[in-house]
Amino acid sequence: MAAKSANQTLGRSGPKERLDRLRLFFPTLGADTLLVSHLPNVRYLCGFSGSAALLLVDESTATLFTDSRYTFQAREEVSGARVQIVKRGLIRAAGTALHARRVRPRVGYSPGQVTVAQKRALESVSGSRVRWVSDGSAVEKLRAIKDADELARMRDAADLISEVFRKIVPMIRPGLTELELAAEIEYAIKHGGGAGPSFETIVASGSRSAWAHARPTSKPLRKSELVVLDQGAIMRGYCSDMTRTVFVGRASKRVRRMYQAVLDTQEAAKRTIRPGVTAGDVDRAARNSLKRSSLARYFTHSTGHGLGLEVHEMPRLGKGEETILQEGMVVTVEPGVYLEGLGGVRIEDDVVVTAKGAVDLTTAPRDFLEL
Amino acid sequence: MAAKSANQTLGRSGPKERLDRLRLFFPTLGADTLLVSHLPNVRYLCGFSGSAALLLVDESTATLFTDSRYTFQAREEVSGARVQIVKRGLIRAAGTALHARRVRPRVGYSPGQVTVAQKRALESVSGSRVRWVSDGSAVEKLRAIKDADELARMRDAADLISEVFRKIVPMIRPGLTELELAAEIEYAIKHGGGAGPSFETIVASGSRSAWAHARPTSKPLRKSELVVLDQGAIMRGYCSDMTRTVFVGRASKRVRRMYQAVLDTQEAAKRTIRPGVTAGDVDRAARNSLKRSSLARYFTHSTGHGLGLEVHEMPRLGKGEETILQEGMVVTVEPGVYLEGLGGVRIEDDVVVTAKGAVDLTTAPRDFLEL
Repeated sequence: MAAKSANQTLGRSGPKERLDRLRLFFPTLGADTLLVSHLPNVRYLCGFSGSAALLLVDESTATLFTDSRYTFQAREEVSGARVQIVKRGLIRAAGTALHARRVRPRVGYSPGQVTVAQKRALESVSGSRVRWVSDGSAVEKLRAIKDADELARMRDAADLISEVFRKIVPMIRPGLTELELAAEIEYAIKHGGGAGPSFETIVASGSRSAWAHARPTSKPLRKSELVVLDQGAIMRGYCSDMTRTVFVGRASKRVRRMYQAVLDTQEAAKRTIRPGVTAGDVDRAARNSLKRSSLARYFTHSTGHGLGLEVHEMPRLGKGEETILQEGMVVTVEPGVYLEGLGGVRIEDDVVVTAKGAVDLTTAPRDFLEL
Repeated sequence: MAAKSANQTLGRSGPKERLDRLRLFFPTLGADTLLVSHLPNVRYLCGFSGSAALLLVDESTATLFTDSRYTFQAREEVSGARVQIVKRGLIRAAGTALHARRVRPRVGYSPGQVTVAQKRALESVSGSRVRWVSDGSAVEKLRAIKDADELARMRDAADLISEVFRKIVPMIRPGLTELELAAEIEYAIKHGGGAGPSFETIVASGSRSAWAHARPTSKPLRKSELVVLDQGAIMRGYCSDMTRTVFVGRASKRVRRMYQAVLDTQEAAKRTIRPGVTAGDVDRAARNSLKRSSLARYFTHSTGHGLGLEVHEMPRLGKGEETILQEGMVVTVEPGVYLEGLGGVRIEDDVVVTAKGAVDLTTAPRDFLEL
């Protein structure tokens, strides 16, 4: 039911307009057709959320190719594109459609999202008349700027994960394992109406909290340990992604200072965000802030990333990144420091870029919780 | 901790032998090196479970390329390969290693697992001396036959999901939503020590049970509905995958007959399984069995698939598939019939192929449960 009402919203303002905006890229790309293979891109452009699809967009029409498992779902979800149910392979069907064109087609595709085998199959079916050009990540560029409907969904996904965090904080105690805590988080996500976690929930405690990408294990939480909780939810297709770091017991002054430095850094990075600055500017602001507490060298990843239909998408807030931030972009701001032995602290929020600067979507408390 | 002990087992009997068996493919492929990019293949060959890796296997050595996020994890997990921590991209590092070879390398790679952009980058860095050949799915072929350590893990994953099903059956009642039930299943998986679900749990009720790939929604279960529950767990890297179909309330004779026909079909398919028959033989046995109750045309997918480190791997038990079943293969057997309006029934178990035939790994009750 959620899917249906979501689609109705999309139907009013979505696919048609998105496809038209996509077509504005055609002249620059030197393309008259775009073959869209990445599933989140397909979903963005026509609403279809199944696991097998190719979308062919030309100057006036669009065709979604999928298979018979999705006959009903496609009928319910797709707008802005004709649906073709395919028996003998999506690539073959799309290639055949290109082969049948009267005018020699110039087709944009994404070399980073098509395998060598798929490309060969496409070429073999569509014939030598087709000229293939890179799509220049055109759909990803459109997706980076969220419209009102997308922002509403992302606000819901962010509200849910903030609520989930508030709910699980009282459960944190020595003896509970990382896996058990992750299970509570993911359970609360689904119980709160989310479709599921937007990535594998991270619960990393003690020295493991210094691993930026730790998977939860059967290690129990112990007194006097840092615990990094990195969690996100999917609602109506859109992701949230939020990290909080808490302490089991009373923390030392050193740990408290470390926490405060990361929080100050996050705020400094957020203050930098506004339309017109580059993604790299935000990353630099974060690193400069950490320098003040001599922790910059323990900040081993980038400051943030875009999110939306995917949990990692454009733009990346990293060193030297030249993408210019624009109103309607949604990014994470997630500085972290990781000290082998002592543990790690990361604080991450999702913010939307507005004319007035960064506005938080995630709202769980950022004070240092000693539990 | 689980990861560590798992690795110790692997270290004793695993990677070295697997790499040597892989090298037996080299002459047939016309390769002297294999570039392994698919992460489950990397894990199978050297134990590394991180999310960024390339493995280069030559006739006497193997090198794992990963980045600094995984320094500690690689040290802990990898055996049989040298680890190289890379700063400026895995592709560049692997390409550079190939470029430095004295003898012109002939490199096997998987065209279905490398994107056009990756291949271009590889070619540009490694230079024109490298000759690229297809790897003929060599690693996937090895992976299809499980060794004793793998079977032990798969038995654990199957035991867990069987136990989870027994645990959640008493919760099934009118009013509970599909999403809530899916949340209970995934919670029980993690609480039972699983790393998580091996795919997005399916709970599909009423007319939605006739959608073979339905995602759970906020639709509540109602009296007199079929409910298809398709669930799997990951334990120490290995997957289980099991479907049961239950009825809320008392079922009609028609529904009971449908259930019995699917169960008979599953048993017929299992009886066919033994070393030497083809995957297609098993699929045909299933379809022939369903013909007896005139339900064959409602069986819209293949009879099963291999599973292991991935939830779908070789072999596929589908129409005309010529792969010969061998001892140690693990496959699902999952006939289903889907009647629009009435609903669907699917029964799925994981079995291992032994000299004596199929032996069930999943053991949850297969009787028709009317709840």
